[in-house]
Formats: sequence, C-alpha cells, structure tokens
Amino acid sequence: MREKGPLVHCITNYVTVNDVANVLLACGGSPIMSDEIQDVEDITSLCGGLVINIGTLDQRTIPAMSAAGKRANALGHPVLLDPVGAGASALRTRTALELMEGLELAVIRGNISEIKTLAAGSGTTRGVDADVADSVTEEDLDGPIALVQSLAAETGAVIAVTGAIDLVADGERCFVIRNGRPEMGRITGTGCQLSALACAYVTACPDRRLEAAAAAVAAMGLAGETGWANMAPSDGNSTYRNRIIDAIFHMDGAALDRGARYEVR
Amino acid sequence: MREKGPLVHCITNYVTVNDVANVLLACGGSPIMSDEIQDVEDITSLCGGLVINIGTLDQRTIPAMSAAGKRANALGHPVLLDPVGAGASALRTRTALELMEGLELAVIRGNISEIKTLAAGSGTTRGVDADVADSVTEEDLDGPIALVQSLAAETGAVIAVTGAIDLVADGERCFVIRNGRPEMGRITGTGCQLSALACAYVTACPDRRLEAAAAAVAAMGLAGETGWANMAPSDGNSTYRNRIIDAIFHMDGAALDRGARYEVR
Amino acid sequence: MREKGPLVHCITNYVTVNDVANVLLACGGSPIMSDEIQDVEDITSLCGGLVINIGTLDQRTIPAMSAAGKRANALGHPVLLDPVGAGASALRTRTALELMEGLELAVIRGNISEIKTLAAGSGTTRGVDADVADSVTEEDLDGPIALVQSLAAETGAVIAVTGAIDLVADGERCFVIRNGRPEMGRITGTGCQLSALACAYVTACPDRRLEAAAAAVAAMGLAGETGWANMAPSDGNSTYRNRIIDAIFHMDGAALDRGARYEVR
Repeated sequence: MREKGPLVHCITNYVTVNDVANVLLACGGSPIMSDEIQDVEDITSLCGGLVINIGTLDQRTIPAMSAAGKRANALGHPVLLDPVGAGASALRTRTALELMEGLELAVIRGNISEIKTLAAGSGTTRGVDADVADSVTEEDLDGPIALVQSLAAETGAVIAVTGAIDLVADGERCFVIRNGRPEMGRITGTGCQLSALACAYVTACPDRRLEAAAAAVAAMGLAGETGWANMAPSDGNSTYRNRIIDAIFHMDGAALDRGARYEVR
Repeated sequence: MREKGPLVHCITNYVTVNDVANVLLACGGSPIMSDEIQDVEDITSLCGGLVINIGTLDQRTIPAMSAAGKRANALGHPVLLDPVGAGASALRTRTALELMEGLELAVIRGNISEIKTLAAGSGTTRGVDADVADSVTEEDLDGPIALVQSLAAETGAVIAVTGAIDLVADGERCFVIRNGRPEMGRITGTGCQLSALACAYVTACPDRRLEAAAAAVAAMGLAGETGWANMAPSDGNSTYRNRIIDAIFHMDGAALDRGARYEVR
Repeated sequence: MREKGPLVHCITNYVTVNDVANVLLACGGSPIMSDEIQDVEDITSLCGGLVINIGTLDQRTIPAMSAAGKRANALGHPVLLDPVGAGASALRTRTALELMEGLELAVIRGNISEIKTLAAGSGTTRGVDADVADSVTEEDLDGPIALVQSLAAETGAVIAVTGAIDLVADGERCFVIRNGRPEMGRITGTGCQLSALACAYVTACPDRRLEAAAAAVAAMGLAGETGWANMAPSDGNSTYRNRIIDAIFHMDGAALDRGARYEVR
C-alpha cells in the first residue's frame, strides 16, 4: 500500500473533505479533489481510483459524479460509492440508485440504513446516521449478512456496512469485523474517511478487492482503538479526530495483522 | 440536551463546516448538511432545527436557504440565522434582510456590526469581524442592549450578539454574559459553531428559547475558558480550536451552572 | 505584519479552506472567503489583498476569480495566484493561464510542475503534487532558477516555487530557501496555507514584494520545523497540521530571522 502510493480522485462532501485528504496522505496515498464536470475526466484519468461520496450533492456535482465514474470505468479504475443519506431524501436515494445503475462499482460503503435503502430501492433513514432499528447486532447477524451478500451478488460490488459490527462481503464470502470504538460515531466523517481509505486499498490491490476493502475497514477500526488509547483526559471528539488519522499515519501491515479482529463467514 | 440529541440541519459556509459538525456532535446533537434546493426540504423535515449561515452564500444556495426555512417554519422547527458579513457586501446585507422578512426566525446570532446592519436595514462592517467602533463595552452597555431588545421585539426572534461581552435578548429580558476569552477571535468559526450550538439548544428546549440560547452562548464562552486552561505553551490557535470543541464534549449541566457568568437586565 | 493585520480575501478550494483561514489568523491577518460573483467585488474592496487558489475551481467560481482579480487590480491590492493542478487538467491549465493574462499578479506560488506548466503554456503533472521528474535539487538549481526568473520577468509577478528547496524570485534576484521538512508533504494544504500567508505578507509590505514573499516561504518552512520538533511519538500528519499553524501563531520576527536559512542569487 505505502509502496504503491495510489492517487485517488475524490468527489466528496465539503464537510469532511479535509480529513478525507489527510487520511489518504496518512495511509500513503494521495488525494485529488475535483467536482467540476469540465475537469473530472482529466483528473480521474491521472488517478488510480475514484471515490464518489454524495454527502453534499448538488445539481452541479451530480452529473460530474456520473461523468467521472464513466471515465473511471472505461479506464478500469475501481470506483467506490458512499451513498451518504440514501433514504434520508428522495434526491439522495435517487442519485445513489442511478449511480449504481449507470456505473460498475468496485465497492459500496455505507451504514446499514443506507445499504438497506439501496437494496430495497427506497427507504427512510434518520438523517445521515444509521437508524437504531437498523443496527447490526450479534443477535441478528444472519439477516444483515444475507442482505449484503445478496446486494453484492446483484451489483458485482463489494458491499461494506459499517457500524458497531462491520460487514464486508462479495457474493460469496463475508468478513465480520469487530474493530472500532463507539466514540467514533461522535466524530464527523469517520465513514467518509473509511470510504477514501477503502478506495485507496482497492486501488493498490485491484485483484483482491474483498480482502483490500476488509483490510481498510479493520484498519480504520483499529485506528479508532489506537487513537482512543492515546487520548488524554481532557481530550474530546475534535482531538480524537486527529488521533485517528495519526494512528493511520503510523500503522503498518504488522500492526494491522496483530490488531484486526475478524471472522469470515 | 444530551438526552434529546437534536438533529440539526445546517446550511452553512464551507470554511468552518467541519467544526460546526463536530461541535454539534460534541454537545450531543447530530448535524446534517445539505444546501441543494431539491434536497433541503426533505432533509429539514427529518431534523428538529435549522441553521442558516450565509458565510459563503452563492446564487445556488440562497434560494435553498429560503426553501429550507419555509419548510422548517411550516413544521414549527426553530430556525437560526447567522448573518455572516451582513454589512460587508450588498448581497450579504440584502440576503440577510430578505431571510428575516421571509422567515419566522427563532434566533439571530451575529457580531455587533452584523446586528446593527440588520437593525438599520443597511450598513458597512470590516469584513466578517465586528468593527472596533461597534464593540460592546462595559462603559456602553445600555445602547447595545436597547438595540438588541428593540430588534428582538420587532422580529420576534431572540437576538444574540457575541463579542467581548455577549448579549442575548428577547423583547423583555437581556442576558449579559461575560464568559469567553479574547483568543477565541483568533480561531476561525467560533461564531459559526456557537450558532449551531444555540440552534441545538433551542431545538432541545423550544419553550424556553431565550434561556436556551443564553445557555449556548455561556457554554461556548466557558468552553473557550476551559480549552484555554488546557493549552500547552507551544499550542496556538489551531490546537485551541480542538480544545474548545473537546471542552464542549466534556461539559455537563453542572459545569455550565458553575462556570456561567451572567446577569439578566 | 501583526500590527497591520492585513485583511485577505480568499477565493480558495474547499479542501483546505479552514486551515487557510486559521493560518491567516495565526499570522495576525484576517481572512474573508467569498466566491460568489455578485459578492466578490464588494468583499475584495474591503480587503487589502486577494488570494486566488484554483484547487476546486468550477464554472461558477472561475468568473468570480476573474471579477475579484480585476477589482483588486483596480484598487492596487496585491493578487496572488495559486495554480493548483495546472498541468493536471486542461481546465486548470487554461484557467491559470487566463488569469495570468487577464490580471496583474503580485505573486504566483506553486510547485515546480505547476510553474513549469505556466512557463510553457501547457503541460502534464502528476495530479496536484509535483512530478518527481520536476523536483528542484541541489544538483540542478540553475535550471529552475533561470525558469522562475524568466517567468517573473515576463509576468512582472514574484514567482515562488516550493518543494524540498524553495525558490522565490523576481526578474533580478532569487531567494533560495532551505527551511521546511519533507513530512509537510504528508499534510494536505501546506501549499495553500503558504499562498495565503504570502499574500498577507505582501499586503502588509507592498513595497517589498520579493522580500515579503520570501519571508512567508521561510516562515512556513520554519513553522514546519518547529511544529515537527513539538511532535509526540504517536502524533501523525493530522496533529502535525495543527502544530504548524500553532508555530505560525507563536512566531515573531526575531524567531524568523534566527531560523530562516536562505541565500540570494
């Protein structure tokens, strides 16, 4: 990963874009942000992968997402979709579904509510966070696993659902990952950062998309644990944000191997 | 506040949006950012309150502010206006005045120059910071208090003016709050963060708008004091930013009661 | 610099805008961000200098860049161009060239690939980072120095090329500056921050543009060194970002004089 230094084109929301850029640099990749339709095809052509995050979509950027995705597909670059808020508004749901339909996606990463919305073709979620009723728990793993595997089979994309327990699946196997800390939900953008990280990993290892996406999910969760361990008593969510990215900066393959907690189903 | 976990829709500038999201999460609320006119009505319907901050307004987002505000009004959600730079440009002044005219605002929060501009219906300020000539001082409190109370009576909104001394008033009472540190002015976005915080507090306590807005102002000032007390010698404004949000993360009602310094006039 | 408190209008990318605002506040200046064509002329008129950074340019903001630049020119305010990604896309190259042609620029600051593109009138770079083949090294200083001096003579602007070795030149003299740390490249936005800093310095000292721009370049590099010296073992690039801005916050003229490492050619 650090040797390949994948260059990742991000069309991503303006809320968390700085952290997305820094986490890509932390993991050894490089970010380029561009959302202008006259610019995105040139930019994506220079890169190795593309993240489409619809967190602050607008009428100007939606066609740019589609154009960039098509160019990335034509070049064989992996495209990751982060359907932020799918189910929370008609525009977000429709846009996410149209991008799924129009593009060949390597990975779709969202919370369980967003992924359920995409699987159902419609839905309602509580804003941009997962609905409590939708949470993935130890008591009910089979349902969510079946859901993500079925969506993976249908779309050809690796599906990554993150929450208290993370699921990363293709049509055949599902990684169940138990890294992370609940306090990560008190920081804006850990999901967006993970999407960028997963795209960087898949760009570096295109032949092992499932394992690469699962490694990114475990790495982000592990960084959440390491970052939390480095917190001083007066530190809160803003410092925690820095410590997580810092932990990615220092993480190597050996640390990830030691710290990753997962099973394959 | 932390029990209710208010969901706040923010149409806010891209300069400080990440800190705005993190401060909302720090105080126990949740942020959703959306500024696309096709999206904002759905999003605001999911939320409990709406922040309209015109810091980086543009022709695309101004109609979205208005549409979101009207929907929030129809649903009875509190709407807070942060008229960033009113008086600094004709567009900002006009937009702020039109939003005041077209919407029922629960709170208007700005610096004294911005609030004077709104009261006068026109004005000139030194950019987005308060003009020195406009500052609220112990020697001249009566004038500013009369101004904010009169604007509050006229608009029906709670008016919050923040600076060295903060004033939060409705048509009858005015909280004079003396928390905070001058170094907060050396960080971008403490005002924007406060606006989001005040909207979250008012969303959680809609029946006591004045007290809720005043509590948010005192909480932000107190966080500025606590954050400053946690500074190491080499820390500067970038770290201070994190420490203030961290202080909000750790603040509870008891700490706020102990630390708030205010009088009611 | 700190006495004059220059007010700087920034039309800058949304990736690093918050850090740009905080670094301006750290150095004693004040930022105002506005990219709406109906707003920029009023805003730039209030300010002392203008930064145009094309990092996330779009069809809406390009005409605003031009309009703001023309107004700043008419008022005699220094205008700094940061041609982010010139050479990486046709739109970026064309936009940078058109801004150079249409405006009188006080400073152009970029990496060597971007500056080569502007000098050649076309080019290809590896995204928004400098191409390795283009790097400025001790072994080959004469070529890059000739390049920047020739571009400076042609355009009338001070040209600042930053990388492992920084060059700041007008048509006659070239400062070769050796401050900084390679780890600064692992943070997003140190270049954007430097552009804002250089604009603030030139705004404060309009009669000594070359020295002011060189001082800003040395200050940013020195802040990178000081910030790195303040790193704890678990700190990574996200904390480093804060520590650099913090170092600017604490820097004074004496510290800069002591720490600046440069020669004039």
